[in-house]
Amino acid sequence: MSDIIDFSKEAFDAELKRMRSLNPLVHCMTNNVVQEITANVLLAAGASPAMVIDKHETAQFAAVASALLINVGTLTDTAIGAMELAIESANNAGKPWVLDPVGAGGLTYRTEFVKRLVSTLKPAVIRGNGSEILAVAGVGAGGKGVDSTDSSLSALNAAKELARKSGAVVCVTGEVDYITDGNKTVSVSGGDVMTTLVVGTGCSLSALVAAFAAGAEDLVASTASACKLAKCASEYAISIAKGPGTFHDAYLDGLYLTGR
Amino acid sequence: MSDIIDFSKEAFDAELKRMRSLNPLVHCMTNNVVQEITANVLLAAGASPAMVIDKHETAQFAAVASALLINVGTLTDTAIGAMELAIESANNAGKPWVLDPVGAGGLTYRTEFVKRLVSTLKPAVIRGNGSEILAVAGVGAGGKGVDSTDSSLSALNAAKELARKSGAVVCVTGEVDYITDGNKTVSVSGGDVMTTLVVGTGCSLSALVAAFAAGAEDLVASTASACKLAKCASEYAISIAKGPGTFHDAYLDGLYLTGR
Amino acid sequence: MSDIIDFSKEAFDAELKRMRSLNPLVHCMTNNVVQEITANVLLAAGASPAMVIDKHETAQFAAVASALLINVGTLTDTAIGAMELAIESANNAGKPWVLDPVGAGGLTYRTEFVKRLVSTLKPAVIRGNGSEILAVAGVGAGGKGVDSTDSSLSALNAAKELARKSGAVVCVTGEVDYITDGNKTVSVSGGDVMTTLVVGTGCSLSALVAAFAAGAEDLVASTASACKLAKCASEYAISIAKGPGTFHDAYLDGLYLTGR
Repeated sequence: MSDIIDFSKEAFDAELKRMRSLNPLVHCMTNNVVQEITANVLLAAGASPAMVIDKHETAQFAAVASALLINVGTLTDTAIGAMELAIESANNAGKPWVLDPVGAGGLTYRTEFVKRLVSTLKPAVIRGNGSEILAVAGVGAGGKGVDSTDSSLSALNAAKELARKSGAVVCVTGEVDYITDGNKTVSVSGGDVMTTLVVGTGCSLSALVAAFAAGAEDLVASTASACKLAKCASEYAISIAKGPGTFHDAYLDGLYLTGR
Repeated sequence: MSDIIDFSKEAFDAELKRMRSLNPLVHCMTNNVVQEITANVLLAAGASPAMVIDKHETAQFAAVASALLINVGTLTDTAIGAMELAIESANNAGKPWVLDPVGAGGLTYRTEFVKRLVSTLKPAVIRGNGSEILAVAGVGAGGKGVDSTDSSLSALNAAKELARKSGAVVCVTGEVDYITDGNKTVSVSGGDVMTTLVVGTGCSLSALVAAFAAGAEDLVASTASACKLAKCASEYAISIAKGPGTFHDAYLDGLYLTGR
Repeated sequence: MSDIIDFSKEAFDAELKRMRSLNPLVHCMTNNVVQEITANVLLAAGASPAMVIDKHETAQFAAVASALLINVGTLTDTAIGAMELAIESANNAGKPWVLDPVGAGGLTYRTEFVKRLVSTLKPAVIRGNGSEILAVAGVGAGGKGVDSTDSSLSALNAAKELARKSGAVVCVTGEVDYITDGNKTVSVSGGDVMTTLVVGTGCSLSALVAAFAAGAEDLVASTASACKLAKCASEYAISIAKGPGTFHDAYLDGLYLTGR
């Protein structure tokens, strides 16, 4: 895999500093399960969350926020309308939006919605696990519920193809994370498998990707920095945790402490 | 109470091992308050959660999940339709579904819905506190909000009657938990009262009941095992906690550590 | 600021004891992000939460609960109807209701709703940060997303004016909290800035305000007691926490341990 570059510590340090000094306001339209951890992850990392979800408010808010997150984990008809208004507003205001295609592949309704968004509304970044990226790219049938049954590496070629076709940076996460624009690909290693026993660590990583995307010059580097920050936090957490409960809190502490 | 058998450690160990090796995918349709703890409890215990809630997706997903949880804590008209689709699909696919009648008795709307479900759609297990089980059984007027004002023992006769009438295993929880199919009744003791100061420990216990119900040969034993796992986790938690905040995390750690 | 009185420890101790012996049932209609922490804050402090949200149930429940919380953080058309039913029922039953105008000012839809509630449905207490209180009072344009860009002191005159006009006690929180009925004003100091890195500490403070408002003879003292309890818990938390994750749990422990 000689075309894959390990993301450098120097680039990460610079991006983390940039994100924190910007303190981006991230408009989160995410699923019902991970609202709290998503907000807490953004706060701990140095960004500001706001969960504005109603059709009367999403367009107004997306225009003033720094970046927008769209996560389809508990999609509804009502949410679809409000999300489309938010995305169009973000696009008009020149704000990046990030797509997290939770559970794509296994469920027809959300898979069709996700594909429509990707082909028509130009996400800046798409972040998913192996099974989800394979499904959005039109390969594979999806994972087990919302968990991946495919490794990130097995989805890398599909990720590159999806990036080239959509114009988005594609980030496929797992034991190693890969971030690609279709030409350049960087990898981020580290972390700990206990991260998968805390709900919302993946979904909230997509919120971090949005935070780093705000004002970014290089979306591959900004996305890799979000991944690296999560890996650092997981490594801090596993050094302290006795199980997934204490891991959760130590993960948030780790996001806060990294780079300080 | 000579007809009540203490649930044995051997049976618990065997059921815990079985559940973990199955790693059941639990389709959770639960209330807005406890989504995160419910997912984290399932993950810590060794199951996989997925919160699929929209009418476009619930039938498709219930057919592939290992078990279904229906919790009426924040019931709405929209949820009712999606829940009924999920239950019918689970029943058709031969997957067990578990009913948590949160707050039944005090509130007319949900009480009528719960009674309709019990009489027409055959839950595998009904899990509630004393006040809720009395209300579903048609005795008693419900508790204080969502908290029980009746002990589990005071609801045991109603639980047995409800089990015989409905065909479901009925689990009434409290300081001592009782699990009955109307003939056989087992009890599970232990735990700690601080569990009642963490929101969602009861609701997520119902999710554990669903996890253990997946593929179970004996629903009384599988349900008692879910109760026993929660009791063990509470005992671990109280040995560490300084208050309900640290108890919450230690409870999740305890679910993970029990039997390892 | 010679007309501002520091809230006394004696008054706090008496109010805390009164609230705990009442164990008030707080009907929470709050936003999707903070449901769990709101419930856990109430439980840790010594109250009982119940999140009843559907139009079929809110009127029935508001009449039996001890107090009602209305928080507009993730407002929808559906929620508006259910909230109005709850408020009218609480008013008819003589139960106090508390308004948390999250994000008022920046977003037109919720700002108009909040102003309508204040002018027509008589909240007992309004609790917000500086930017929110300025917006509800008709001054100022709102904060950054849901975070304040105005200090609590800078909003104090607007708070007094709002209290006189609306008849509500107004509580504007920040580094120092001010509670005013338009004539008498008390201040509550302490706490720690890390509180702002945990989502829902502000929203759940409004739930505590509702808990203390239940059966209160002096709403200024009851509201100041809620603020003081939160400050005490934050001080306990910062003495233990390594970051916002451990702070969150220690905050809940602190609510439980204060005064025991």
